[in-house]
Amino acid sequence: MTSQKEPQEGLSTSAKVTGPSSWSRVSCPCCISSRIEPLVLIQLAENVQPITKQWIMSIISAPVKAGGAQLLVHPGEDMKGDMIVVAAPRCTLLRVTEDLGLCKTYQDGNMTAFSFEDRDNFCNIDNMQQFLTLAERQYIVKHELDSMRAMEDQRIPGVPAPKGKLKARESILQKLEKAGVIRNITPLHDQKLLSVLGKQWYSHKSLWGQPLDSIHAYFGGTIAYYFSFLDFYTLSLFPPAIIGLFITFFLPSANFSSANKTESESTPPKDDDDQPSVSSYMVQAVFSMLWSTVFMELWKRRSAALSYRWGTFNLAEQFQEPRPGFHGEVGTNPVTGRLEPLFPEWKRRLRIGLVSLPAVGVFLGLVVMGMTGFYFFERLVSGWHKASGSYFTAVLLYVPSIAHIVYTNVLGNIYRNVALKLTEAENHREESSFDYHHTTKVLVFTFFNNFAVLFHIAFFKEDLPLLRKRLSSLLIVTQLVNQFTEVVVPFLVDRFFTSADRNLKEDDPEVDHLQAQGSLPTFPGLFAEYIELLVQFGYLSLFSCVYPLTAPLLLLNNLTEIRTDAYKLCKLFNKPFSAPVANMGVWQLAFEVLSFISVMSNCWLLLLSPRVKELTEDAGLSSSKVLIIAVIVEHVLIIVKMILALMIPDEPDWVRIKREQIEYHSMQAFKKQRIASSRVADKLPLKA
Amino acid sequence: MTSQKEPQEGLSTSAKVTGPSSWSRVSCPCCISSRIEPLVLIQLAENVQPITKQWIMSIISAPVKAGGAQLLVHPGEDMKGDMIVVAAPRCTLLRVTEDLGLCKTYQDGNMTAFSFEDRDNFCNIDNMQQFLTLAERQYIVKHELDSMRAMEDQRIPGVPAPKGKLKARESILQKLEKAGVIRNITPLHDQKLLSVLGKQWYSHKSLWGQPLDSIHAYFGGTIAYYFSFLDFYTLSLFPPAIIGLFITFFLPSANFSSANKTESESTPPKDDDDQPSVSSYMVQAVFSMLWSTVFMELWKRRSAALSYRWGTFNLAEQFQEPRPGFHGEVGTNPVTGRLEPLFPEWKRRLRIGLVSLPAVGVFLGLVVMGMTGFYFFERLVSGWHKASGSYFTAVLLYVPSIAHIVYTNVLGNIYRNVALKLTEAENHREESSFDYHHTTKVLVFTFFNNFAVLFHIAFFKEDLPLLRKRLSSLLIVTQLVNQFTEVVVPFLVDRFFTSADRNLKEDDPEVDHLQAQGSLPTFPGLFAEYIELLVQFGYLSLFSCVYPLTAPLLLLNNLTEIRTDAYKLCKLFNKPFSAPVANMGVWQLAFEVLSFISVMSNCWLLLLSPRVKELTEDAGLSSSKVLIIAVIVEHVLIIVKMILALMIPDEPDWVRIKREQIEYHSMQAFKKQRIASSRVADKLPLKA
Repeated sequence: MTSQKEPQEGLSTSAKVTGPSSWSRVSCPCCISSRIEPLVLIQLAENVQPITKQWIMSIISAPVKAGGAQLLVHPGEDMKGDMIVVAAPRCTLLRVTEDLGLCKTYQDGNMTAFSFEDRDNFCNIDNMQQFLTLAERQYIVKHELDSMRAMEDQRIPGVPAPKGKLKARESILQKLEKAGVIRNITPLHDQKLLSVLGKQWYSHKSLWGQPLDSIHAYFGGTIAYYFSFLDFYTLSLFPPAIIGLFITFFLPSANFSSANKTESESTPPKDDDDQPSVSSYMVQAVFSMLWSTVFMELWKRRSAALSYRWGTFNLAEQFQEPRPGFHGEVGTNPVTGRLEPLFPEWKRRLRIGLVSLPAVGVFLGLVVMGMTGFYFFERLVSGWHKASGSYFTAVLLYVPSIAHIVYTNVLGNIYRNVALKLTEAENHREESSFDYHHTTKVLVFTFFNNFAVLFHIAFFKEDLPLLRKRLSSLLIVTQLVNQFTEVVVPFLVDRFFTSADRNLKEDDPEVDHLQAQGSLPTFPGLFAEYIELLVQFGYLSLFSCVYPLTAPLLLLNNLTEIRTDAYKLCKLFNKPFSAPVANMGVWQLAFEVLSFISVMSNCWLLLLSPRVKELTEDAGLSSSKVLIIAVIVEHVLIIVKMILALMIPDEPDWVRIKREQIEYHSMQAFKKQRIASSRVADKLPLKA
Repeated sequence: MTSQKEPQEGLSTSAKVTGPSSWSRVSCPCCISSRIEPLVLIQLAENVQPITKQWIMSIISAPVKAGGAQLLVHPGEDMKGDMIVVAAPRCTLLRVTEDLGLCKTYQDGNMTAFSFEDRDNFCNIDNMQQFLTLAERQYIVKHELDSMRAMEDQRIPGVPAPKGKLKARESILQKLEKAGVIRNITPLHDQKLLSVLGKQWYSHKSLWGQPLDSIHAYFGGTIAYYFSFLDFYTLSLFPPAIIGLFITFFLPSANFSSANKTESESTPPKDDDDQPSVSSYMVQAVFSMLWSTVFMELWKRRSAALSYRWGTFNLAEQFQEPRPGFHGEVGTNPVTGRLEPLFPEWKRRLRIGLVSLPAVGVFLGLVVMGMTGFYFFERLVSGWHKASGSYFTAVLLYVPSIAHIVYTNVLGNIYRNVALKLTEAENHREESSFDYHHTTKVLVFTFFNNFAVLFHIAFFKEDLPLLRKRLSSLLIVTQLVNQFTEVVVPFLVDRFFTSADRNLKEDDPEVDHLQAQGSLPTFPGLFAEYIELLVQFGYLSLFSCVYPLTAPLLLLNNLTEIRTDAYKLCKLFNKPFSAPVANMGVWQLAFEVLSFISVMSNCWLLLLSPRVKELTEDAGLSSSKVLIIAVIVEHVLIIVKMILALMIPDEPDWVRIKREQIEYHSMQAFKKQRIASSRVADKLPLKA
């Protein structure tokens, strides 16, 4: 703990020295402390006037009742004056901890929803650095900054009229960001903690195990969940990897593997048509179906256990203030009794169903259209080329591909904007619900884009060798390219272009450290990381029976992915804010849906496999009889999958018991409280 | 209210007169009342010794701490001495109301979980007849009787050794029933209330509307839910009935209807093959899919609203004592802290998965085997008959049918026992969970039995005209037979065989009324009623596109069904106990599953329809291409169905808000209570 406090001392000491430009005053006596820990850095635009900065600082440090965030601010000490450092007093931290519904260790050892009034019965309450994790403290600051709303119509000093006008109840931070006053808000790194974490994490000698609790403490919920899932997923890849290797190297008819691996892109393997054998197809297909079900169910259990461990199993977002972007007629929330904007649920559902859903459908249609167009023109052009064989037609051959790539990119960009606008129009009350719907939209599109070609090959061309070739090249090439662009490029950029600012020693002035942190690029979020895993998982569960080496290759990829992701997060980007969460959110669902689709795809691929075709021909079954059998098998397998999923409980027994205990005691307490309050009421003259 | 109390007065007055054989003493002062309402009748076997009866009465009236039920007992006044009348004191009623988690109107007008300590703030608390419904009061008595457990190893006086031995913690009532001491336990009718209800219900002139609240009050939760569903379902049948009539009478190619309706069984309609038209098939199939989804979703909303209205939305069965049949090692319940038998959840799941599931599978296999055997032998025998044409083979023609019927019946009986044993072995803690698993088992089998032949005709014989014929005859004949056996037979039996005991006037001695009630047959439960609805719903959603008159016929049937069911329940059987429930339980799921299967079945029937076949042949599509299209359409429709189901929220907004209010206030109260209890702890010397 001593190492953890030094950086704070750094700034707080220097703050004392500098005099006027020091931390703002603490408003309540219990929060006075000799050490103030800088948590979040607000970077202003360069042309911001001092009066605006002063106004922002005053509103951030103002009490909540006055529309402020009740935080501590420090003007920074650089020449440009474009920084505000924010810290949080103890009271604010504890109050928001209760608002968020975070659970902390109670004196009886159980994780219990924190209550400000009852604070003295929680463990470690005297030391905020131990009581809340760094990520939680920083998220709380962010949460409070986000909740600042204008009390009345007013103007932001130093900002010209149209941009600087604040309406009552408007989110101040959003307005400042839109007006270009605030450039960036980042949580601050704690270099000492970070280097310790880095050592445990990506510089670790052993191949296995990540310091998940430390990751959670340092980076926070969403990121810790991503790495936990990556960890669990990688571990779960061992069984399919072993089976894949076994099928490739030990089953009689599977003798192409090693050759195929290197030649896959250039020359087609000679004996593509008669392997893998029927039995290996069957084994692989049924196994991958069972595996994906069991894997997802076990992950759910692990996820429930983690959310208990990390105190996020009782988050009550629906009882909090709505998210900043939420709008509606101001009224009394019928549940909490607070005054806030209200928006009827049925309107939202109507918008989702009648606007968002069709719009997403149209875009998916456009993707399909693009692909069909591409195939059509490619065939057309190659026909021309064959017919004439001129230099001109040879150039023309490239046109469809290029046009398709341009089309896809443009479409993707348009779609991204449309998805955001649509989700905003749905007007979700909770941040998590907004994320859920936004991610779903982008996800469906991205997934479709990724798999359209493979599905086309599998279901329309019905060309298994091509599918196998394509899959192996995707697995090897795409993964390599991904790793390269994700890590090597940022690393090089970081080394050679921005190194001048960052080669700081520990004894350099604090302010330079701050400056350096601000200069890193913003972390792009976990979407790209998750979608990579999802696409991988798709390759594996949808198509692995045609290319058994998928699992071993993915395993190899993931073992490096963990390290590169960790390195990237620690070194190459600004630290991101990360909300406390109880699960992976929409990604959980995405993986589950995929594992359902995999049943259909596996049944279909089994049907297409040349061996099965031969077999059924030998048995004298007509193609439609075989199809009917396949459909029946598919439906049965889906039922088996559902039963299996129902059989494995979604949370471990000990978590269920803890949850039921809380339910039970809340119920009891509610009854007790009513009695107490009615007794108080009885004492009033009105009733007595 | 005055009319309601008279029958009680009757007994309580006569009790006073008879002296020694009067009501047992009330143990607490607040329960003393001049009027005791007899609620439940326990009928003993005829050879039970007075000492045994005395012992049973003493244990029922003993306080809970002494292993009793804390109820009031009356020895009855008949000559045979084989009756015990049970009533409940106010304290017991209120205590159990809290245990069950029933919600009642609070002083602020909201439905609130009842709390004994806080009783004075609930409305109508001074009048038990208003505060609790008759069904609730009777269920509470039943619940308390069921919870009686032996405190230590002991013997039941007057019952010989092997049967009369009670082990510690054994359920006393179960033991007495097993030993043949108790013949029957029935709640008592309140004739005045019943005749009022009957007038409103089945003697009502108007075709529409049932007095659901009165039904709930008089008969209780499960029965009220059944009639609410029947009501809602019948109302929902109007749209498909109108469409069905329209297709039958107004669409150009549909000119068989009226003829078909009467001739369906004897002569096949002449123009079976070219109708209904493709468009009507399509309309019917897509409509019935959408209809069944919307219907189920709207029912869920209605069901949620009813459970709020009836105060059952907060039942907390998992926090109650386990059901009587539950066994396990005695330990401390980790949630409630009570001492009770414990049984690990994983063991139960393992038993379900590894024993029950395969066993049910085997029986379903036997059904299929039976059917295949039947078809095989039928073909064989009719072949013989054609070949020889003798008198002997003509008789032989009947053998397969008879053998099949016998086989099915024997199998059904065996299965019923096996299902009960299996569910008992699963050792469910809660009554509702037991019912759920038991009903599911019986349900799957019964459903399979009902639909196996239709599925066979539709999917293997692919003979649509036969399917249509079969469906129409099932609809008309089976429904008629059902109504007949369900009502007319019991009615006649009731009239001519047992009328002697029952032609009582109001001024006859109370005891004769009791005697008469005991002599009615036991209500067979709602399983048969629900399964009838489910099978109906199956005809409609699975196959209605081949016979559009299904919906109008069902509508007609249901309008009478409501009345006959009501009459039956009120007049022909003993009043059943009916637990407070929050929904239809497993039946909800069964209807939903059926509506999923209907998508598949409709797609398939569409594919088989002669017009579609012609069309695809004209378009030059191969049969496997058509099949693939059908499979794709099916999958798309299922996705549409799921999206539709997600779009319609499962509970109305106002119920959701009430639920969230309770959640929120419980959470707040839990925090407050911790503070209060820690303050108490602080005052103890240990901490101060």
